[in-house]
Amino acid sequence: MPTIQYAGRPGVLDLSWGHPHPDALPVGDWAAATGAALREFGWQALAYGHEAGPAELAAWLCERLTVTDARAPVPAEVFVTAGASHALELLSTQLVEPGDVVLVDAPTYHLALRVLADRGAELVEVPPDPGALEEVVTRLRRAGRTVGLYYLVPTFTNPTGVSLPDPARRSLPVTADRLGLTVVEDDTYRELAYDGPAPPSLWALGDGAPVVRIGSFAKSVAPGLRLGWLTGPPGLVAALVRRGYVDSGGGVNHTVALTMAAFGRSGGFDRHVASVVRRYRGHRDALVAALHAEGVACPVPAGGWFAWLPGAPALPAAEAAGVSFLPGRVFFASGGPDDHVRLSFSMLGPADLAEAARRLAPLLRAAGPALRRPSPGGPTATRRRPSPG
Amino acid sequence: MPTIQYAGRPGVLDLSWGHPHPDALPVGDWAAATGAALREFGWQALAYGHEAGPAELAAWLCERLTVTDARAPVPAEVFVTAGASHALELLSTQLVEPGDVVLVDAPTYHLALRVLADRGAELVEVPPDPGALEEVVTRLRRAGRTVGLYYLVPTFTNPTGVSLPDPARRSLPVTADRLGLTVVEDDTYRELAYDGPAPPSLWALGDGAPVVRIGSFAKSVAPGLRLGWLTGPPGLVAALVRRGYVDSGGGVNHTVALTMAAFGRSGGFDRHVASVVRRYRGHRDALVAALHAEGVACPVPAGGWFAWLPGAPALPAAEAAGVSFLPGRVFFASGGPDDHVRLSFSMLGPADLAEAARRLAPLLRAAGPALRRPSPGGPTATRRRPSPG
Repeated sequence: MPTIQYAGRPGVLDLSWGHPHPDALPVGDWAAATGAALREFGWQALAYGHEAGPAELAAWLCERLTVTDARAPVPAEVFVTAGASHALELLSTQLVEPGDVVLVDAPTYHLALRVLADRGAELVEVPPDPGALEEVVTRLRRAGRTVGLYYLVPTFTNPTGVSLPDPARRSLPVTADRLGLTVVEDDTYRELAYDGPAPPSLWALGDGAPVVRIGSFAKSVAPGLRLGWLTGPPGLVAALVRRGYVDSGGGVNHTVALTMAAFGRSGGFDRHVASVVRRYRGHRDALVAALHAEGVACPVPAGGWFAWLPGAPALPAAEAAGVSFLPGRVFFASGGPDDHVRLSFSMLGPADLAEAARRLAPLLRAAGPALRRPSPGGPTATRRRPSPG
Repeated sequence: MPTIQYAGRPGVLDLSWGHPHPDALPVGDWAAATGAALREFGWQALAYGHEAGPAELAAWLCERLTVTDARAPVPAEVFVTAGASHALELLSTQLVEPGDVVLVDAPTYHLALRVLADRGAELVEVPPDPGALEEVVTRLRRAGRTVGLYYLVPTFTNPTGVSLPDPARRSLPVTADRLGLTVVEDDTYRELAYDGPAPPSLWALGDGAPVVRIGSFAKSVAPGLRLGWLTGPPGLVAALVRRGYVDSGGGVNHTVALTMAAFGRSGGFDRHVASVVRRYRGHRDALVAALHAEGVACPVPAGGWFAWLPGAPALPAAEAAGVSFLPGRVFFASGGPDDHVRLSFSMLGPADLAEAARRLAPLLRAAGPALRRPSPGGPTATRRRPSPG
């Protein structure tokens, strides 16, 4: 039984893990923030917390979202969660019944697919396109199926690294409202914007539309804290507060939530995010430059932790060459197509990323000319979409 | 939006809250433990944690259970949770399908009933008695129902404060095994033993029997931490580890779990538990003595946070007199009978508890002679059980 989830393999530069770089974790700062929170809030920092999360974190978060998003929530629209994954588990429990269809983007975050499948949902791939959504929803409902949710990561997407462009971004909340869908917007990477601000969230754009946005402190601060949040209609927040589990235990990560409030108010969060943005921008640049130097085209993600490259080198061959990644097929509910790889540039530093690119390049080149097609864009790359599955 | 869950009412001594006394929360100690954990484990304290919980906490917990229970688990039998309520939510998701019957003790922890009902289970009350269990299970299965779980709090029970006596304690795991039931043993109060050690857990007694025991740090350390654990068959632990939500986020409360490991290893946990046991024993003694002085018989709970008194004073009248409690009916899945009150002696200190007893006594006395029957026992009181409802 180990301490952490990550398990390294000697000799392999492993770009499969969407985990932070060890040096990006605020070890000293978090000790200081914990001390500050316990001094400021005293016993209240250790008591059963307010079910929707402590007022102090909600207030600070609403302020932070005036900086990073186009619209800030009010506290009644905020529910503090035990991480983004917990938020999705909670939402699927609250909004999905076993046997329902849940629509999902393709490719999309592979473990979100697992969370939704665990709820007993049938997953159907559809791109965030009004026509495609309408066609799929109509067909499924005609067949008697219940279709309520649409899950996607529209900003600095896992796995593609790119963002849903306008006009699809602006039209999606409207389409969802018209079709009676709730959009579950996984907005985990908003803080990690390397070339200017992140695009506005679907939640912000869809003022009043049925959008629930999931946010996280896993990438901006530390995943071990298991702290996230969601913004959604006050009625949904109230329904989550009424769950027996939440009533019984109070706020789902109270002490950590108050510590984050102290970290935020002190300016520590802003400083830390600025430093991780610099760090991961440097990681991205190192990976992209090394791939380009090897003659491998690489779309340049404007944020997040991932690059998505065409190609399908065999994983055993890659690992024999000392490099690893996640094959594209895992990011599809249908299990395919397998014509891309996801490279995570978060956990390894620039030198390791450059070496990983050198090891990987011959394998990508060997996969043929498709790999040499031009990058679909520079820092402002829009999203490349496969056909609906 | 407040900071904490507790909301006081001016002029009311409120014995309805199962919350800790503010002075029992280790504010300074927890800051020190956090600093120590971050120094010892460094970035690993903030990374994605091992899915079942960090090895260090599991190892310490296994040691602690050699002191407080009759059998210690091995690490493969331990899964660290985000509190006892989260453990029950997770278990009900994993082990119950909507429409299943879940058997529950009566009276039992009222919010556990809510958690199980949220899963879509139908709750059926049955006492932890071999004959009653067999009769109910047989009847329900003959009627085509799926019956898989039996939930109870056998030690320092919420709400009664007393513990399941032998021989029922020893026979229950055997009965469950024979009937193909999994016992979910809510063992939240084990550390709070005031008159000698807690009885062995059903999990410990039922070596190899299908018992899953839920433990918690909410009462022994602090509820805001949202840290708990369960011991169960390695196959169940492995199934929880495989959930998409757990795979996605890693250990469900990693940083806090490693901090608890540091707190435990340093001896801080042992010292803190000794102090809270002294404190709550004093609370119990003050409440019981004040009730006795007022001529109200009160069973003496040997552990935990609750006393369970016969009587059903009207809550509005009590609150008008400046005292509150939870009426007995809420602890029954069937909503009754309403012939007891639960008094929590955790959150208020001895002087307030004595004053609350003085305010409550006339109302209890006014409810008639049933209130004057002798206490069913002293410190070693065994459990008084209502008929199956």
